Amino acid sequence: MSVFTTVTAEDLQPFLKRYAIGQLVDLQGIAAGVTNTNYFVTTSHGRYVLTLFETLKAEELPFYVNLMAHLAQHGIAVASPIANLDDDYIDTLNGRPTLLVTCMPGRVIDTPTPVQCAQVGEMLAQMHRAAAHYHGRMANPRGLAWWQAAATAVYERMAPADAALLRRELAAQAAADFTALPQGVVHADLFRDNVLMDGEQVGGFIDFYYACNDALLYDVAITLNDWCVTVDGDIDTARARALLVGYGAVRPFTAAEIAAWPLMLRAAALRFWTSRLLDFHQPAAGEMTFAKDPGHFQRVLSHHLARRDFWLA
Amino acid sequence: MSVFTTVTAEDLQPFLKRYAIGQLVDLQGIAAGVTNTNYFVTTSHGRYVLTLFETLKAEELPFYVNLMAHLAQHGIAVASPIANLDDDYIDTLNGRPTLLVTCMPGRVIDTPTPVQCAQVGEMLAQMHRAAAHYHGRMANPRGLAWWQAAATAVYERMAPADAALLRRELAAQAAADFTALPQGVVHADLFRDNVLMDGEQVGGFIDFYYACNDALLYDVAITLNDWCVTVDGDIDTARARALLVGYGAVRPFTAAEIAAWPLMLRAAALRFWTSRLLDFHQPAAGEMTFAKDPGHFQRVLSHHLARRDFWLA
Repeated sequence: MSVFTTVTAEDLQPFLKRYAIGQLVDLQGIAAGVTNTNYFVTTSHGRYVLTLFETLKAEELPFYVNLMAHLAQHGIAVASPIANLDDDYIDTLNGRPTLLVTCMPGRVIDTPTPVQCAQVGEMLAQMHRAAAHYHGRMANPRGLAWWQAAATAVYERMAPADAALLRRELAAQAAADFTALPQGVVHADLFRDNVLMDGEQVGGFIDFYYACNDALLYDVAITLNDWCVTVDGDIDTARARALLVGYGAVRPFTAAEIAAWPLMLRAAALRFWTSRLLDFHQPAAGEMTFAKDPGHFQRVLSHHLARRDFWLA
Repeated sequence: MSVFTTVTAEDLQPFLKRYAIGQLVDLQGIAAGVTNTNYFVTTSHGRYVLTLFETLKAEELPFYVNLMAHLAQHGIAVASPIANLDDDYIDTLNGRPTLLVTCMPGRVIDTPTPVQCAQVGEMLAQMHRAAAHYHGRMANPRGLAWWQAAATAVYERMAPADAALLRRELAAQAAADFTALPQGVVHADLFRDNVLMDGEQVGGFIDFYYACNDALLYDVAITLNDWCVTVDGDIDTARARALLVGYGAVRPFTAAEIAAWPLMLRAAALRFWTSRLLDFHQPAAGEMTFAKDPGHFQRVLSHHLARRDFWLA
């Protein structure tokens, strides 16, 4: 469903001659993903993933691609970009900018165990450490101003009680100041479907195209809100504790982070509530089938608002 | 036998804290190798090889280490250097400069098949292509002048007929001019024990510490002289053809290379005849047990001198 740009073996053969990875053996479209076109490319040297970018332009890609390369060079479980013979990671195929990366082991899992959550927390903390000196800079394109704009676009289509909750939460977040928290490069979208688990190990973090500079704690909250939440949007205590212990063993939380944690969990829920509201009420052409339930993150937010124990102390 | 500098888990734990690769799980010395100390280091993230350099100094390492990183970034089957949190590949442990790299699949094989020789030739050609824009420069430290100096040191200990052969071959090589051949970065020591084979695939080229800038054809000749030679030093035609076809399919040989090939095969044999003569007659302290038979490469050279067919045309 998500091969937007078709690639044939005939297209790929001249493309692969610009790389040092051998002869084409097999080519398979990848169904997962809603934004870009992805193919498994098997050559005489091994298996790779080829991405054709459908919306990002070539000049927007270096921040993400160089970040992946930087993380891979530090041993973080991310796909390594493969350079072509002109020493460029970004090439062009069928009118789209492309990236070829190594294939990571593992698969997406729906129902993680606490041990897996601990491993994801650990790798996320290692990723934050490894990116500390990354030279690229990218403002968060999905920050407070974006949430406010999205909310303004959808208020009138929402039930009054829901709209009131959204207004109150946006006001609370507008009054918050997270700038004193440790900052760095965050993945900003580390949901279960952006992590390959190889048994209990992290096989690879994928899909870095929301990565940006922000509070590191924001990344922890986004991750926890997906990995450690029940189907009704409440926190699963065992998984949440495991993720936080795994993370904190590598990068201990600061006092300021502990104080900010309840509000940060809500900010992370608000981020996806607003974007799903917008996708639901104002779907882009052809994206209707991908719109996810905005109510889920409203429930996550409501549970956070009702909760008193947050285990970061 | 080749762990010259002992590393304990207690030594390694603070060292690993400077990296983003998780907690130490296991540590095993590696017996192979005669120059550096190598350990398998298993962490919660995976398996790595740690090298402690016993003779190369930290300031001599960037050419080799950045070359490995460059090749890995192009998808060549080489171990990827892992950077520490200061973004340095080279660190220090127990008084030695160190390098931590990913663990490559496969094992060293003694008796390659023609198919394996073809794969090695193919990967070598891809390596030569991928290194075309590598910025590092390193003169060959084991070139003609070194062969001449080594010969001068051992002539008087050689049988007169062997010494005469050596003098004649050095004179022939001194008259040769390979500078018009395609030049680039060569491994210069791609013997069977520096390649991990993963079944019929190349799992990884290792041990880049003789890499330098020289004629690409010299690398082909060194490789063929080990991979495609019988125990008595004669060329195995099936393996030699396979290696050359595998190489030439990626980077076709030029007319100048075809013309130079017989003399280049002899140059590559002379390189190891002279170094083995020196190791044999003037062993460095403690290296006696590693001295290899110089007669083998004398026989390789003699077979090349007697041969008339070289399959590069």
